[in-house]
Amino acid sequence: MTPPRLSRSSDGADRGGARGETLQAEIDLLGALAYGELTGFLRLSAHADKAPTLEQTAEVGALAVEEFHHYQLLVERLRELGADPQGAMRPFVAAVDAYHERTTPNDWLEGLLKAYVGEGIATDFYREVAAFAPEPTRDLVVRLLDETSGAEFVVGAVLEATERDPRVAGRLALWGRRLVGEALSQAQRVAADRSSLTTLLVEGGGAGTDLVAIGKMFNRLTENHVRRMLRLGLTA
Amino acid sequence: MTPPRLSRSSDGADRGGARGETLQAEIDLLGALAYGELTGFLRLSAHADKAPTLEQTAEVGALAVEEFHHYQLLVERLRELGADPQGAMRPFVAAVDAYHERTTPNDWLEGLLKAYVGEGIATDFYREVAAFAPEPTRDLVVRLLDETSGAEFVVGAVLEATERDPRVAGRLALWGRRLVGEALSQAQRVAADRSSLTTLLVEGGGAGTDLVAIGKMFNRLTENHVRRMLRLGLTA
Repeated sequence: MTPPRLSRSSDGADRGGARGETLQAEIDLLGALAYGELTGFLRLSAHADKAPTLEQTAEVGALAVEEFHHYQLLVERLRELGADPQGAMRPFVAAVDAYHERTTPNDWLEGLLKAYVGEGIATDFYREVAAFAPEPTRDLVVRLLDETSGAEFVVGAVLEATERDPRVAGRLALWGRRLVGEALSQAQRVAADRSSLTTLLVEGGGAGTDLVAIGKMFNRLTENHVRRMLRLGLTA
Repeated sequence: MTPPRLSRSSDGADRGGARGETLQAEIDLLGALAYGELTGFLRLSAHADKAPTLEQTAEVGALAVEEFHHYQLLVERLRELGADPQGAMRPFVAAVDAYHERTTPNDWLEGLLKAYVGEGIATDFYREVAAFAPEPTRDLVVRLLDETSGAEFVVGAVLEATERDPRVAGRLALWGRRLVGEALSQAQRVAADRSSLTTLLVEGGGAGTDLVAIGKMFNRLTENHVRRMLRLGLTA
């Protein structure tokens, strides 16, 4: 399902109010993604430190490093737009930090599932966003998607753990529900607070249109999350 | 001052005992460096999480990511040599972990100084090692050196902090002494335990030759450390 495209010229010719609003929305978007990647890097590298083997330290470390590179690309794009990267990230600090505080993994497997679920939702969100964003931000986001190697090793680790002890599946299913719930709840909070961001995501319409479109996007993210949980042999 | 080169053919034609010993030494060397880089990545990213600003989080994060890339290159080389990377790192886990446990920074500045001092000593050590190692390990080590961006932003941060409060200089000078002391002490421990490693570093000679050569190398590392501390306006 293709989300509605924002009807705008991408050559920046429409200056003035509309252009200013779109620019702010673009900066918001990049700032939110950048802060998400930076904290993702910090959380994943902290989790890598708890790995049972050096090999797993390196696997999770590689995911962390990937997030840091995305952060660097997003900051570069913010600078190109003449924005201050720290200022652009600031409005999203509270929501992203709250997500991480409420989803601190209790053990190695919970951390792996968080990495997998988080990366999945982030990738889906990028994909949605890529369709709306003006160039060259759209290109950048697509590049980040192409580069994402995926936390595929998590699938094997989870299947192995639930095979060894089937009770683990119930606990991880609950954990997955909590992760997606917290992620969407914080995303809703951001969408409500930053109307500039939601205007980017929806084609201009009457009052309430954006909320409906955002709601539909969240539904798509949730559906994909359910599919990913099934791949792990977990109910969602 | 050029350290003595190991007199050996680099084409791998000298198989048998001598070749086996050199290969073990090369694996030891790569394993020690790899574990150092991997833990460096973990420690630096944990420190990045404590940064006072997001900009500093990113600066220290970039150092962490650099270490992870070095780790990946070293592991790749270990695999080329047919070695198991985890097995190659294992003998050095105790010494490296002990170094980090004994040098846990008490605050942001101590962590920055540790990054600066640690990277300085590691870079010097790489440089020494590059002269001894067979190809293509030598090339790899030189590449890592060229890629090292340096923790130069630390110089500004330390100078600024000591200008604001001159008492900080005394505390950081003591901390620098502790860092280099612990680093060399753990390196001595490794040199004593892993004779294969020290044979790589010295030209074949009578008993004791290697200890003398190692001692001289440590002196050079210490001299360079003193120079770096002076650049920070700190006594060493």
